[in-house]
Amino acid sequence: MPNRRVTLRDVARSAGVHPGTASRALNAERRHLVKVETAERVLQAAHELQFRPDPAARSLKTRRSYTVGVLIPDLNNPLFPPIVRGIEDTLNPKGFVALVGNTDNDEERERKVFEGMRSRHVDGFIVATARQRHPLLDQAAEEELPVVLVNRIRDDNSLPSASVDDRIGAQLAVAHLAGLGHRRIAHIAGPQDVSTGRGRLAGYQAGMAAVGQPVDPTMVAFATGFTRSEGKRCLTELISGGAEFTAVVAGNDLLALGCYAALERAGLRCPEDISVVGFNDMPFLDQLRPPLTSIRIPHYQMGAAAAVLMLERIANPRGEVDARLLLPQLVVRGSTAAAPRKAGPSGPADPKPRG
Amino acid sequence: MPNRRVTLRDVARSAGVHPGTASRALNAERRHLVKVETAERVLQAAHELQFRPDPAARSLKTRRSYTVGVLIPDLNNPLFPPIVRGIEDTLNPKGFVALVGNTDNDEERERKVFEGMRSRHVDGFIVATARQRHPLLDQAAEEELPVVLVNRIRDDNSLPSASVDDRIGAQLAVAHLAGLGHRRIAHIAGPQDVSTGRGRLAGYQAGMAAVGQPVDPTMVAFATGFTRSEGKRCLTELISGGAEFTAVVAGNDLLALGCYAALERAGLRCPEDISVVGFNDMPFLDQLRPPLTSIRIPHYQMGAAAAVLMLERIANPRGEVDARLLLPQLVVRGSTAAAPRKAGPSGPADPKPRG
Repeated sequence: MPNRRVTLRDVARSAGVHPGTASRALNAERRHLVKVETAERVLQAAHELQFRPDPAARSLKTRRSYTVGVLIPDLNNPLFPPIVRGIEDTLNPKGFVALVGNTDNDEERERKVFEGMRSRHVDGFIVATARQRHPLLDQAAEEELPVVLVNRIRDDNSLPSASVDDRIGAQLAVAHLAGLGHRRIAHIAGPQDVSTGRGRLAGYQAGMAAVGQPVDPTMVAFATGFTRSEGKRCLTELISGGAEFTAVVAGNDLLALGCYAALERAGLRCPEDISVVGFNDMPFLDQLRPPLTSIRIPHYQMGAAAAVLMLERIANPRGEVDARLLLPQLVVRGSTAAAPRKAGPSGPADPKPRG
Repeated sequence: MPNRRVTLRDVARSAGVHPGTASRALNAERRHLVKVETAERVLQAAHELQFRPDPAARSLKTRRSYTVGVLIPDLNNPLFPPIVRGIEDTLNPKGFVALVGNTDNDEERERKVFEGMRSRHVDGFIVATARQRHPLLDQAAEEELPVVLVNRIRDDNSLPSASVDDRIGAQLAVAHLAGLGHRRIAHIAGPQDVSTGRGRLAGYQAGMAAVGQPVDPTMVAFATGFTRSEGKRCLTELISGGAEFTAVVAGNDLLALGCYAALERAGLRCPEDISVVGFNDMPFLDQLRPPLTSIRIPHYQMGAAAAVLMLERIANPRGEVDARLLLPQLVVRGSTAAAPRKAGPSGPADPKPRG
């Protein structure tokens, strides 16, 4: 008999027990309901017959699909593959799989992906797309669908989450630059409707306060997305606006790459004229020109933590709301150096009027 | 009544037809079995009730899960996210989802992922891990499970596949270097048990023949994996073995990054002393030091083509075996330049003995 046809009934027959008994013996959570020697006989029979439990059949009994929906903006952003692997490597040994959907930061697409996953009866959602206002999340909460946030959180902490302390990360960046003698430090802030954008801006402000520097609003630009093109646009704006700075903390690495492009276009050198710090420490930053100083986020561990929270949630949907906050780490490379004598792109002796 | 509880039966009742009729009307492939006005009434009722078909229930009827298993080595390799997105973006509009599994190039792990997906009754496998000898693929073929290969192929062309012409790619690299005056061109070959490693080596050999250069075996090193560390090891070996070359074609971009490290360690400059060409054109190569010349592979399109082949295969499991071969493209950046006067690391005037 080929392996794929072996059923619970075959195992029960071979072990000489009722199928219900075999089912309990094969379920780690219910095995204690069966006598030890019976359980052993069933497990032995299952092993000999190479029995593979059928999640579809199991799903009909338990109303579980053993599938978790994972919503991310875009797998092509180097941030997400390690998060997804952390989730998968944690779910799989427990018999769960992750169904990953890309939303492309588009609400309609997200809604479609969400509905598609719901129609497949996923047991819950791990969401990396959380915005402060997010009707989908409100709806999921109302319907008591297990939801765990990863990377991004919501200010009200109403949902379990695994994320990194973005404030601490940005403070580390400012502290590093201040240690190199920088005082006039600019910030390219990420979108303010997501926690990563808000937290890093708050951390930048706190970091500036900690080194006794006022935050000059002309030194902060707001990106509409965490992209290279937005980083380039924002830093170009700051430079042409005449802001005087010697360093910039970018909201993430892609924004930092955009800063590189803006500096090149303006004829400014990194780090000789302007130091740049990224955020995320995505792969291959050490091979950039110059190698980018960044804030390392433990993405894999963050994904793994989110999966643990999801498994807890599935087992106990009304358990306490747990927030796991991981710590970021500064990784110093070639894009940051001692502050130059002159005070930035336009120089202190020749401040341009600001538009 | 909340949306999620609407069943086929509700739609049938609302349209005043038998559930079987409603089912046929809602299935595009079987709609012709129902009168036009009846079908319209059912579709209207389904729309008004916001009926969402349940893939789990559909699966019980059709014996389809509307799920395709995708086996890749590791999502963290920047090659795979665009392939996966190409697959997903093509499958999703047809009602299918992709279940992605990472094998980490480990046979035991691959077997486990494969069995896990099979126990979920996936409708087929898209496989990016194909090796020339691959018992799992033989088994799948024997069991008539639909399998489509992506990126890598097998020499016997026994399975449908979507891939790029690796030979042409490597020939483009050699032709580009020859145009810059290079004659002594080394190759860091990828693993030879997979088609990408073999095809690129064959293309390198053909390219050298085309420009009238013999292939010197001391100028070819074999990596055991497509990794930075292997690239570094291999090029260091060639250099310390005294091979005389002015350029190197790396089996992929990660191997090329390893070449950068080996050159730096040997005190050689790229491209002034040695030109380097990568393969894949992964993201952010333009920001490397120096920006890496590479062979661009249309990864997203390759994934999309594989998904199309899979959908064809599911509809017609015994259809013809189709192989889609996409074309690569040379992208010239700063890592390749005119050949130096001297003939390479050790120089023509001072050839070292070869170990």
